Amino acid sequence: MNSALLATGGGIDFGSIFTDLAIILIVAKIAAELFERIRVPAVLGEIFAGIVIGPSMLGLIDPSDAMRILAEVGVIILLAEVGLEMDITELRKVGRVSMLVAIIGVVVPMSSGVLAGTVLGESFNASLFLGAALAATSVGITARVFGDLRALSTTEARIVLGAAITDDVLGLIILTVVTRIVQQGSVDFAGVASTIGIAVGFIAVAGAVGILVIPRLFAFIGERAVSPATVGVLAAGLTFGFSAAASGAQLAPIIGAFIAGTALSRTPQHDQISRDFKSLGAIFIPILFLQIGIDTDVTKFFSQHVLFIAAILSVIAVIGKMVAAIGARGTNADKLLIGIGMVPRGEVGLIFASIGVAIGVFDDELYAVVLLVVLFTTVITPPLLRWRIRHSQ
Amino acid sequence: MNSALLATGGGIDFGSIFTDLAIILIVAKIAAELFERIRVPAVLGEIFAGIVIGPSMLGLIDPSDAMRILAEVGVIILLAEVGLEMDITELRKVGRVSMLVAIIGVVVPMSSGVLAGTVLGESFNASLFLGAALAATSVGITARVFGDLRALSTTEARIVLGAAITDDVLGLIILTVVTRIVQQGSVDFAGVASTIGIAVGFIAVAGAVGILVIPRLFAFIGERAVSPATVGVLAAGLTFGFSAAASGAQLAPIIGAFIAGTALSRTPQHDQISRDFKSLGAIFIPILFLQIGIDTDVTKFFSQHVLFIAAILSVIAVIGKMVAAIGARGTNADKLLIGIGMVPRGEVGLIFASIGVAIGVFDDELYAVVLLVVLFTTVITPPLLRWRIRHSQ
Repeated sequence: MNSALLATGGGIDFGSIFTDLAIILIVAKIAAELFERIRVPAVLGEIFAGIVIGPSMLGLIDPSDAMRILAEVGVIILLAEVGLEMDITELRKVGRVSMLVAIIGVVVPMSSGVLAGTVLGESFNASLFLGAALAATSVGITARVFGDLRALSTTEARIVLGAAITDDVLGLIILTVVTRIVQQGSVDFAGVASTIGIAVGFIAVAGAVGILVIPRLFAFIGERAVSPATVGVLAAGLTFGFSAAASGAQLAPIIGAFIAGTALSRTPQHDQISRDFKSLGAIFIPILFLQIGIDTDVTKFFSQHVLFIAAILSVIAVIGKMVAAIGARGTNADKLLIGIGMVPRGEVGLIFASIGVAIGVFDDELYAVVLLVVLFTTVITPPLLRWRIRHSQ
Repeated sequence: MNSALLATGGGIDFGSIFTDLAIILIVAKIAAELFERIRVPAVLGEIFAGIVIGPSMLGLIDPSDAMRILAEVGVIILLAEVGLEMDITELRKVGRVSMLVAIIGVVVPMSSGVLAGTVLGESFNASLFLGAALAATSVGITARVFGDLRALSTTEARIVLGAAITDDVLGLIILTVVTRIVQQGSVDFAGVASTIGIAVGFIAVAGAVGILVIPRLFAFIGERAVSPATVGVLAAGLTFGFSAAASGAQLAPIIGAFIAGTALSRTPQHDQISRDFKSLGAIFIPILFLQIGIDTDVTKFFSQHVLFIAAILSVIAVIGKMVAAIGARGTNADKLLIGIGMVPRGEVGLIFASIGVAIGVFDDELYAVVLLVVLFTTVITPPLLRWRIRHSQ
């Protein structure tokens, strides 16, 4: 009898899952504590630690579906937490500005990226994917950094997060369109229109349910629940339900999680829910960022060709998003702070790269290019944001 | 492009995982609230709800590895919580009595169970597994019921919990031995001795590390940690590490989790850790009990053969544990209360049943028999305990 059987009564190797979990959680906190001491945000320490313990360096952890599932739970909780801390009324005030910032922040980097790809000799399809991969700001990383700096309630943070979420939606619509262009050689307008319709419809319906139904439902439950844990668990169930629904509408699950969070922020029990989600997030969010590092194959980075294209696209990625701050013209928000906040790329860029590989537009090198751009924009943002927040106060 | 690809950039269908999670969490709380109102423990409501939404009834949820992984995280957190609430010094005072109660409570039901199985015409191997499945008292259910009745600090509760934990260890050693007997056709004494040696060695070493090293380590960390979440996350990492180590020593991971919990109860931050684990447990422990229901095929219950064997084994299961209270002779503890407290079976019995199926000793019917006995002993204990506590005061 082997210990895996004893541990499970089935085919899952829980011993190795628990080993991975123990290593990831302990390493995450050591890295976070060390990086905080040298004034670099914990999130970078976690990604870096993931690279170090991952297969391309120490090999302490092999990539596994179990950890990817727990990491995805982490990103759901992170976005729900962000939603919980958002004041929708305040968010709505910056709505138009966010929308403008988002659109400029998608159009400029994407068109420059496509142009650069073509000039650098990549095929049109590959250039299209490279450009599109630069479109979406990472909601997760942006939210985490603003959170770490305790600046989530500033107008700038609201504009950036609103824009980043809009970016995600735009990015996923673009992904649908460019995938169709590559696969069919032309744009099927009816199909694209239905994709956009479903996405917008989901956001409208989920938003309305979130604002109208959820707070009343929780007020009702709060008066009647016997068990004190009921509210927190139902809040988590609702968050996963909204995430699943977003996925059903061909959107990223995180969009649903964010909408669920904003709905929960209007319930009478939002403080308790927030505390419960923080306890969950403390465990699962580090898994998410370590997993980004674990999934990174650094050996692919060491090629002149890769580094050269990545350097050019990184410049475009940074400038393209800084320019987006023009969308905040006429407000007294700090434009430079908004521009910096929009810089980090993340999940959506990585999804583009994976799908690019899956449909044969990207080779390993172009995948590595996108990964480098994502890492670069993620690494430079936190110190720049910290510097700017200090100097603007 | 399909939504699964979009949602993941990989091969995991997160949409369906989040759908399952949402259904499980929401249904768990509805069931728990309804059962609490009719004075039946929530845990039974959760198992029952799992049966209802599982494939043998409504089919809302298909069994999946993703949910089994999250359920296993649940049992780890449950046992760590129990460990956190144990006062080791008080536990040690009743140590000898607990040990006696545990040994009688393992020997009597197991030997009667093996005898009954043989008399009822089951094979020797199957009878061996049936008897062994009756050996271990459920720590989780016992602790939860004493807790609900606010009787955790009584001498009787300590004796019962100490005995239940000893039972778990004995039960898992028995599991190793009987599995070897079934698979090898004979007992390889050197192998069994080494298994027992490793198990006892693990418990001794982990216990010593838990008592001597962990509290000092956490005192050290507590003084230096920058991030407030560090302590809670490290506590979770340590718990998973101990669970993985137990699995490596061919013990159930829950033994490691329990030892980690007792170690964490001696740290300066035990209150904070306890709160963090409660938030985690609120989400993951219901998944565990729902999953037990989901994995239950009730259609197998409706057979005269199954019900007949289950009835006989249930009587043996109850009387066998009541007899164990003899171990408390000479103390002024309430023997009947101890006997009742020892009755519920749980996780370990189910592990026996699953492994019995995995190695081909059990068919679906015998699996159903063990499940029925577990359900029966769990259902009758809370009202009996409540009655006895009222009458002995």
